[in-house]
Amino acid sequence: MTELRAIQAVTWVSTPAPALRLLDQTRLPADEVYLEATTVDGVVDAIERLVVRGAPALGAVGAYGVAVAAAQAGREGWSAARLDGEIDRIREARPTAVNLAVGVDRTRTHVLDGVDAVVAEATALFDEDVAANHRLSALGADWIADRVANRPIRVLTHCNSGSLATTAWGTGLGVVRELHSRGLLGLVYVDETRPLLQGSRLTAWELSHDGIDHVIQVDSAAASTILRGLADVAIIGADRIADNGDTANKIGSVGVALACAAAGIPFVVAAPSTTVDPTTPCGDAIAIESRDSAEVTAFAGVTTAPTSSVGFNPAFDVTPARLIGAIVTELGVVEPANDTSMRAELPVADVRGAHDRADA
Amino acid sequence: MTELRAIQAVTWVSTPAPALRLLDQTRLPADEVYLEATTVDGVVDAIERLVVRGAPALGAVGAYGVAVAAAQAGREGWSAARLDGEIDRIREARPTAVNLAVGVDRTRTHVLDGVDAVVAEATALFDEDVAANHRLSALGADWIADRVANRPIRVLTHCNSGSLATTAWGTGLGVVRELHSRGLLGLVYVDETRPLLQGSRLTAWELSHDGIDHVIQVDSAAASTILRGLADVAIIGADRIADNGDTANKIGSVGVALACAAAGIPFVVAAPSTTVDPTTPCGDAIAIESRDSAEVTAFAGVTTAPTSSVGFNPAFDVTPARLIGAIVTELGVVEPANDTSMRAELPVADVRGAHDRADA
Repeated sequence: MTELRAIQAVTWVSTPAPALRLLDQTRLPADEVYLEATTVDGVVDAIERLVVRGAPALGAVGAYGVAVAAAQAGREGWSAARLDGEIDRIREARPTAVNLAVGVDRTRTHVLDGVDAVVAEATALFDEDVAANHRLSALGADWIADRVANRPIRVLTHCNSGSLATTAWGTGLGVVRELHSRGLLGLVYVDETRPLLQGSRLTAWELSHDGIDHVIQVDSAAASTILRGLADVAIIGADRIADNGDTANKIGSVGVALACAAAGIPFVVAAPSTTVDPTTPCGDAIAIESRDSAEVTAFAGVTTAPTSSVGFNPAFDVTPARLIGAIVTELGVVEPANDTSMRAELPVADVRGAHDRADA
Repeated sequence: MTELRAIQAVTWVSTPAPALRLLDQTRLPADEVYLEATTVDGVVDAIERLVVRGAPALGAVGAYGVAVAAAQAGREGWSAARLDGEIDRIREARPTAVNLAVGVDRTRTHVLDGVDAVVAEATALFDEDVAANHRLSALGADWIADRVANRPIRVLTHCNSGSLATTAWGTGLGVVRELHSRGLLGLVYVDETRPLLQGSRLTAWELSHDGIDHVIQVDSAAASTILRGLADVAIIGADRIADNGDTANKIGSVGVALACAAAGIPFVVAAPSTTVDPTTPCGDAIAIESRDSAEVTAFAGVTTAPTSSVGFNPAFDVTPARLIGAIVTELGVVEPANDTSMRAELPVADVRGAHDRADA
């Protein structure tokens, strides 16, 4: 057993003054710098500047952000209407992040009970999320330990599904941490994850922090690494999981899955059950978002392409269920290649309820 | 039919003074700048600074470099021994580039006949290479036009196999140009090709130069682009082709091939017959070179990973013959999924002879 000092990307600080403490992800991997937001302006600025990112992390920021607003309201004697407006500013700071609004909405109903009540509710949300991460990590490690013969287990991962994307611990990277805690983990191959390099900037930083052996590779090396027998399993997170198990995740995931299928090693998706969308029947129903061309035609601030060339920049891809060995959630593990419905395999009410909330 | 103004990466200039004219690839894609080397120092410097790269291109540089040395010897009254030593400096300027030595050795036997004789022999080598590129491009376009039903034909390519890697025209990108010349070409998807970005820096520049519609994508988008039905064929070059058709090429190629197989579209390898190595029975016999970690953990001087993290940087991968629809050479087209020996399918003596020369 290896004890890890957990990365605290989002924490609440009570003294000397109430504050939301955030690991500044814009400074990673070069510097580990923490910001303390004591005002609504500070919270909104941190969200807008991508100091904090990742859907579950933003949920916690929204929930604790209400506490920041309530504390500021007390210090500055705001009216209820003013407080309401300031909370809305946090809620709208990143319109596409559903979890941010969900987090705000869960705690704003407690503002009349005082700052401590808001903090307690935010901490409950936070703790639930962390507990779900730990639970799914244990289930994922069990599944992998049962099915992968090689020791230590060598893992390939793509993008960041760790402490920096969630409230703490992680989903895909949570499973990796759990394998490490059990003494089962070998080398981790980290795809750099162009265009935004979440793998080399964030995942490698998390693994370095935890003292986990890893190497960073360009994304296009993943297929070769897998086909050469250098990895025993691939573990990733998920943006959305359709009812038949088709999974949307960061661009490049389906290429990893194809290589795993060709090499006969399992491709494992780890995600909270709120990621399962039982109302999406299959991957064909998921629209692929295209992001800014400049993310592709420049690298680390340096233009790398002719000025007349345009970047094609799909943000994620869809991995068909038949290529997925296991979808690991805190409610249980589904083997979608053998199953036809996530809804039939997992406690339906919980999944649907959680998802409806997330879509609110 | 579309007429293209050819990119002249390597040309001989007779007047006002004899010079080797090189497109400075270190300045691409931002600037199209040409250097003229009139001395051995200039030739060696251009090779060492990667002003020119790509095996066939270096062959031409070696051949014409001897002419530069002979002209300088005449101007400066060198002894035969001095000239020999200076030619050796060109030959050794990049030790791993076999074609450079091959080019030098082919023309240095003509120095006693004068500069014009050296230039004539270098031009013969150059012209043979260009003719082979055109021939294989025509054969490749024929094969693709016969087997791909969609019009216009949408192509995905990886790395640079164009005018900048060869003497002119190109191999994989030569086939693309040929399809364009025939009015059959649709959009080209260009993989950026990390870590050195030959796709975004060089291939996109060549396509822009020729007015060919293209988009640049991160390498990990290739699988998704293919599975979504956005490309009709993938066309790449090759570093080495084993006798059974297994093909070594830039890292990421096998991932493209896996996606093509999953989508049922052809994966086409285009290369001169000198790339076929009949003495290598299969891909397992090809050692995978690992390059500098820093190519992965930094870009253009910007560090993108934690300082404690190491990059794993295999330079190329091996695509198994069963995933390759066609290997296109100037001597003919082989369909390796159906064949067992390149040697049996192509004129053996030519292939072996050419390869022995390239391995000299």
